Amino acid sequence: MTYTAEIIAVGTELLLGGIANTDAQDVSRSLSELGINVFFHTVVGDNPRRMKQAVKIAKSRADIIITTGGLGPTFDDVTKETLAEAFGKKLITNEAEADKIRSFFEKRLPHMKMTENNLRQAELPEGCIVFDNGVGTAPGCAFEAEGKHVIMLPGPPRECRAMLKSCVVPYLKKLSKAEIHSHNIHIFGLGESAVEEKLRPIMECMKNPSLAPYAKDGEVMLRLTAKAASKHEAEEMMSPILEQVCNMLGDIIYGIDTDSLENTVIGLLKEKKQTLATAESCTGGLLSKRLTDIPGASKVYIGGIVAYNEKSKVELLGVDEKLINKYGAVSREVALAMATAVRSKLDADIGVGITGIAGPDSDSSGQEPGTVFIAVSTREADICNQLKLYYDRERIRIGASLNALDMIRRLLK
Amino acid sequence: MTYTAEIIAVGTELLLGGIANTDAQDVSRSLSELGINVFFHTVVGDNPRRMKQAVKIAKSRADIIITTGGLGPTFDDVTKETLAEAFGKKLITNEAEADKIRSFFEKRLPHMKMTENNLRQAELPEGCIVFDNGVGTAPGCAFEAEGKHVIMLPGPPRECRAMLKSCVVPYLKKLSKAEIHSHNIHIFGLGESAVEEKLRPIMECMKNPSLAPYAKDGEVMLRLTAKAASKHEAEEMMSPILEQVCNMLGDIIYGIDTDSLENTVIGLLKEKKQTLATAESCTGGLLSKRLTDIPGASKVYIGGIVAYNEKSKVELLGVDEKLINKYGAVSREVALAMATAVRSKLDADIGVGITGIAGPDSDSSGQEPGTVFIAVSTREADICNQLKLYYDRERIRIGASLNALDMIRRLLK
Repeated sequence: MTYTAEIIAVGTELLLGGIANTDAQDVSRSLSELGINVFFHTVVGDNPRRMKQAVKIAKSRADIIITTGGLGPTFDDVTKETLAEAFGKKLITNEAEADKIRSFFEKRLPHMKMTENNLRQAELPEGCIVFDNGVGTAPGCAFEAEGKHVIMLPGPPRECRAMLKSCVVPYLKKLSKAEIHSHNIHIFGLGESAVEEKLRPIMECMKNPSLAPYAKDGEVMLRLTAKAASKHEAEEMMSPILEQVCNMLGDIIYGIDTDSLENTVIGLLKEKKQTLATAESCTGGLLSKRLTDIPGASKVYIGGIVAYNEKSKVELLGVDEKLINKYGAVSREVALAMATAVRSKLDADIGVGITGIAGPDSDSSGQEPGTVFIAVSTREADICNQLKLYYDRERIRIGASLNALDMIRRLLK
Repeated sequence: MTYTAEIIAVGTELLLGGIANTDAQDVSRSLSELGINVFFHTVVGDNPRRMKQAVKIAKSRADIIITTGGLGPTFDDVTKETLAEAFGKKLITNEAEADKIRSFFEKRLPHMKMTENNLRQAELPEGCIVFDNGVGTAPGCAFEAEGKHVIMLPGPPRECRAMLKSCVVPYLKKLSKAEIHSHNIHIFGLGESAVEEKLRPIMECMKNPSLAPYAKDGEVMLRLTAKAASKHEAEEMMSPILEQVCNMLGDIIYGIDTDSLENTVIGLLKEKKQTLATAESCTGGLLSKRLTDIPGASKVYIGGIVAYNEKSKVELLGVDEKLINKYGAVSREVALAMATAVRSKLDADIGVGITGIAGPDSDSSGQEPGTVFIAVSTREADICNQLKLYYDRERIRIGASLNALDMIRRLLK
């Protein structure tokens, strides 16, 4: 049997937009790994009437109800009361938990007086399994009633995450026979709808494994997911499809189960024992920032120059002023000169030069925002691509840095 | 009348836990500022049947239904069909939007073939108001039917946020007689709970105007909001409180109604006619990336050097190798040498040097991740601060770049 779950996050702060519902994300991820379908998230405020309504709806459409939040000691914490009532259970003070709370106040907060409402945290539905809160005071719990599983978790993300891992996952593993495994296929150089168009023939007739595209910041990710009795079996189901997708998409796939294009580039540089230096104008340090996001980048990334105006191109990089005057700062010639200069200045194997207009305004030469030249220089050869990027300053800069990373990747392959 | 709203976020990726529902957070915050109550968030997958169910429930309990996501070109984008059907509307191709999509492909992606499904994005409910998508291709829309307001927004957070600000807030403002105005007070150098502690005496007795703190990426923002019959009246209500808050918090306030610390710094540099150059080690270009995020930065920001390993500190910056050997690359002496070197190399008024350990590993000298030295050098004097930053690589790098910006700001004040 495949279980379906609904996550109810309780807290007015979520409805005011003060915080994002990361608890639901964390719980969802764990459930998806367990092969449990999550069909709905609901967020409701600290309001008994509306909470009751949310629980009633969830009860009608899910096998497992997981709540986050509303377990605290104050009068507006209504989760336990509402769930207990919905399933005809009484709340009973759990003496072990009450003792823990008393001793917490005695030992850690001797200057604060424990108030009676602190003990409300020890009241739990009769017959439930208590989930110990390793990083906070409110315990969580689980019970089974009317064929449903009800699980209550604390709201603070650290507490929720810790309890999820140590208590909820083991509890839910017992319910399910099947395992879910997946692979992420990372793509650069083709849009989401074009990727889908290419793969539609195989996607349409798939159910298990399934294949779904996601677009993010100029890249596309395909997630291949299989549900099976074991990891081995899931891998066997995915393997031919993974091969087929790789054959169909070819070298626009920059990695499988990797983190990012910069991660792939740093990995390739290490593997090929090559070093890299960068010279950036319009991206203003974004490329070097991305490369140095990766721990251990210093082994292969030597450093870079942000030559943000003409003066710095001449003085820091030693680009010939005449070249800039003749072709303009945003030109193939200057991009190539920047790449070559930074490579030789830092004695790197590969030099990258980026010059362009990020906008919103055009430059003095009348070039449009989005015009970007990216050059890659090695001891053997130099190449330069001219790009036309779109939308706004941020997207143009992100696009330029991704294209530069992809050029380095293709060079190293 | 006080309106109540429900936000329905559409996307299987949210239910799999791949991303957090930040769209609902952004929409909630805007609605709360407009005085509209949000009672529920719902998240549903790209599934027509369950989407229909979610819409039916929302229709029964909210005056305003706002959806995010599911407006894309692929067959699993079901938002428009479901909402149109729920309110008895037809979907009609909007020729102006279809032309935009065609011209987008012709002009910007001539090497890519536009597929028919791309035109699905131009199909909109009859009689709706079209919301232009300034940063993507899928338009949003709004219509009124059966006494309800329905608003559909794109899923990608950047697109959702932009449309929220430029289209949704003006649309919703017309529903309410009262006007809502606010000021954002930006703070660096004190945590959220410390700010709240300081201001609690005045916050507690306030209702209109209201004052609420938000923490984000190492900064705190206070939002002061007033509801009144006119802008003038709202400003008169806020003015004494704004003055009181400024007096209480002093120079940890870096700006009011500004975008970011880097924006404040670029503004001050322009105002004081000073130029800036940067030399970065552990931040790896993040500081120069932030500075060049601001359009027009090239007038005052000359450029920078990312000296990511010792070799580049010596070769690009000309830092004395003996200094590095004697004090270590992560030291007060090297930070000061970096700041001075980049200032004189680029003939700037102000030079900044950052060296530290971003982690996750310690360096060879045994220094702990989070140890960071930031130096600021001018023709008159040099200063250097030693910081101990916490959490992970990303937070340490963000914290170092913010502290550097704040040091420049304080110097220029």
